[in-house]
Amino acid sequence: MAKQPKASESKATQLAHERLVALGREMVQEINANESPSFMTPVRSRSNVKVDPDSGVLYLGDSKEKRTFVHVSQAKKFMQTVAIASKLKSFLEQGLHTSIRGLYYQLKFTIGEDVDEELFSEQAESNPLIEDLEAALDLKREDFNLSTDRKGVVAGNFIIRDKFGGEENIIDASKQGRSGWMIPSDVDNDMEFLEVNADYVLVVEKDALWQRLNEDKFWKKNNCILITPKGQASRGTRRLIRKLADMKLPIYVFTDCDAWGWYIYWAIKTGSMNLAYLSKSLATPEARFIGVTMGDIQNYDFLKKLTINAKDVDIKRAEEMLSYPWISRHKEWVEELNTVLKTKKKIEQDALQGQKLTFVGDYVKEKIEGGKVLP
Amino acid sequence: MAKQPKASESKATQLAHERLVALGREMVQEINANESPSFMTPVRSRSNVKVDPDSGVLYLGDSKEKRTFVHVSQAKKFMQTVAIASKLKSFLEQGLHTSIRGLYYQLKFTIGEDVDEELFSEQAESNPLIEDLEAALDLKREDFNLSTDRKGVVAGNFIIRDKFGGEENIIDASKQGRSGWMIPSDVDNDMEFLEVNADYVLVVEKDALWQRLNEDKFWKKNNCILITPKGQASRGTRRLIRKLADMKLPIYVFTDCDAWGWYIYWAIKTGSMNLAYLSKSLATPEARFIGVTMGDIQNYDFLKKLTINAKDVDIKRAEEMLSYPWISRHKEWVEELNTVLKTKKKIEQDALQGQKLTFVGDYVKEKIEGGKVLP
Repeated sequence: MAKQPKASESKATQLAHERLVALGREMVQEINANESPSFMTPVRSRSNVKVDPDSGVLYLGDSKEKRTFVHVSQAKKFMQTVAIASKLKSFLEQGLHTSIRGLYYQLKFTIGEDVDEELFSEQAESNPLIEDLEAALDLKREDFNLSTDRKGVVAGNFIIRDKFGGEENIIDASKQGRSGWMIPSDVDNDMEFLEVNADYVLVVEKDALWQRLNEDKFWKKNNCILITPKGQASRGTRRLIRKLADMKLPIYVFTDCDAWGWYIYWAIKTGSMNLAYLSKSLATPEARFIGVTMGDIQNYDFLKKLTINAKDVDIKRAEEMLSYPWISRHKEWVEELNTVLKTKKKIEQDALQGQKLTFVGDYVKEKIEGGKVLP
Repeated sequence: MAKQPKASESKATQLAHERLVALGREMVQEINANESPSFMTPVRSRSNVKVDPDSGVLYLGDSKEKRTFVHVSQAKKFMQTVAIASKLKSFLEQGLHTSIRGLYYQLKFTIGEDVDEELFSEQAESNPLIEDLEAALDLKREDFNLSTDRKGVVAGNFIIRDKFGGEENIIDASKQGRSGWMIPSDVDNDMEFLEVNADYVLVVEKDALWQRLNEDKFWKKNNCILITPKGQASRGTRRLIRKLADMKLPIYVFTDCDAWGWYIYWAIKTGSMNLAYLSKSLATPEARFIGVTMGDIQNYDFLKKLTINAKDVDIKRAEEMLSYPWISRHKEWVEELNTVLKTKKKIEQDALQGQKLTFVGDYVKEKIEGGKVLP
């Protein structure tokens, strides 16, 4: 009988273990049949990244590659992939997590301590093979007990049961004070949302604005869930947003009006090139854009004084965005981006505090209640 | 009667308000006496940054500057400083926080909305004047309701009462599951440590290692407080470490053996050049260094295989450190740094997981219990 993953309520880690075992069994069968062991994986190169022309969501096309052991250019990579699969299986059985750096150091001992030959000499070798396995087995690295970089904070009326490390903790995200609940690496396995009571989700680019809105108890007064990705959203934060959207909560994203802010919004909404193979878990096409917009300057007079000169990167990004059909089909975005190109100005979300610190919340409310959001 | 700061239990914000009011009163007296308004502030330039040759702690010397209004080169800066002081006073009275960016946007309206002249055209103008006020009034910006960048996470047996935004939350840092408690911008005002039950504090450079140790319940099994600054420590994290040291808890810092890791340790221990005026609040000379060290390779054979080539920055930093009397007086550090220079190798804390994921905790225990730490 095969070893079992350490007791866990998570279906995904169970599935991860099953699929790793099945992968190994198929290889053994091939070897027993005097064939080269092999496996199929979706092609992850740009040529196979497709984009939905309506929503802009990035996803992998149907191209697949066969990775096989008996092949001059593939033999080493194949061995390396098997070594990674074997390590991941053992992490699941031990019920222990590590990072991809931790995995890399473990892989240094794959061949045996006394052998001078190394199967891996750089982490750059193991990283793409982890992605191969995620794509081939149709699961996320988090399901294989690999922890990822954490970033992002949340507060709101929801309660979580967290069984990380086998110990149960009940966390009430409405009682975290100034800190909020730090969004973990993995919001799926060994945790459960016991209760979610909110009308919508507000994702605020900058932590400084999150702190401002949290101090005003914005999320409590408006019964929403307040997230900051602290810049570009981590995998955990994107996954949390996707899960909350699955609970039918509207998702509103509030960023600077500049290249970086737009990028943060579109990565949440459509996924990103490198993670196209995970879009169904990480992309949230339902997300809507609150602002800041150049159009706001018409409605809030004090903002006129607070614009900044757009940089080349902002101009270039605005031009690029206008060339995407899933953006250019929305006249609101076309108007917005053309205003940036014409005026060569941009504006930050922080500027909303210029006259009155608490105005940020008034602004968000007005946008949401008035339906003044961009697609 | 002067306005009062919004009800707050914090002595420091009360004091901040008092000192701002006193500063203003002194200026009014000077004006009434037909003198130029002025104030004294410690010189913060490198010439006045001193270093304690024994501990390496950076601090400001006795040089002070008089800032005065009736002075061609100082008039604008003086007006700007007064404008900042006035804003900070109003934040305290409103009981509201913002970031230095939010403050900058508020300062855009100092002269009045209808006036085209701006007192500030870039944030680079307001930032050093905030530091002037911190130094002149001998308080931290956090005491003036300025929020700072948050980074760093902690778990352990301690309980906090948090009254941020006027609402009380009791936070038990032993019940935060996978996430831990995110270290806030301000660990002083409107919050209180109700209970701290720990034998020591372990500061781990990388979040990935924090997650590893948290999963193993290292802090619970060893009754310690487990902090990660997530790289270079934020002001909030440095302040938390200082406060825990004030509670007589030994502080152990665990980083990579490289330029960046050493820098993280020494910044926690001795403060940093830019924040020398805040060393008494932020520096923790009591901190001790756990590793990773080059010496570890002698004791843990498997690490031999896991060293990395040192980069120029590592070599340069090791040479610099050897030139500091507060480092070169410790033979342990001299030996350690000379080994780096001789072997041109370095080693990461992640490598400790190479053979066994849970070894990281064994390593830390062995170091602390065996007293094998560097000064």
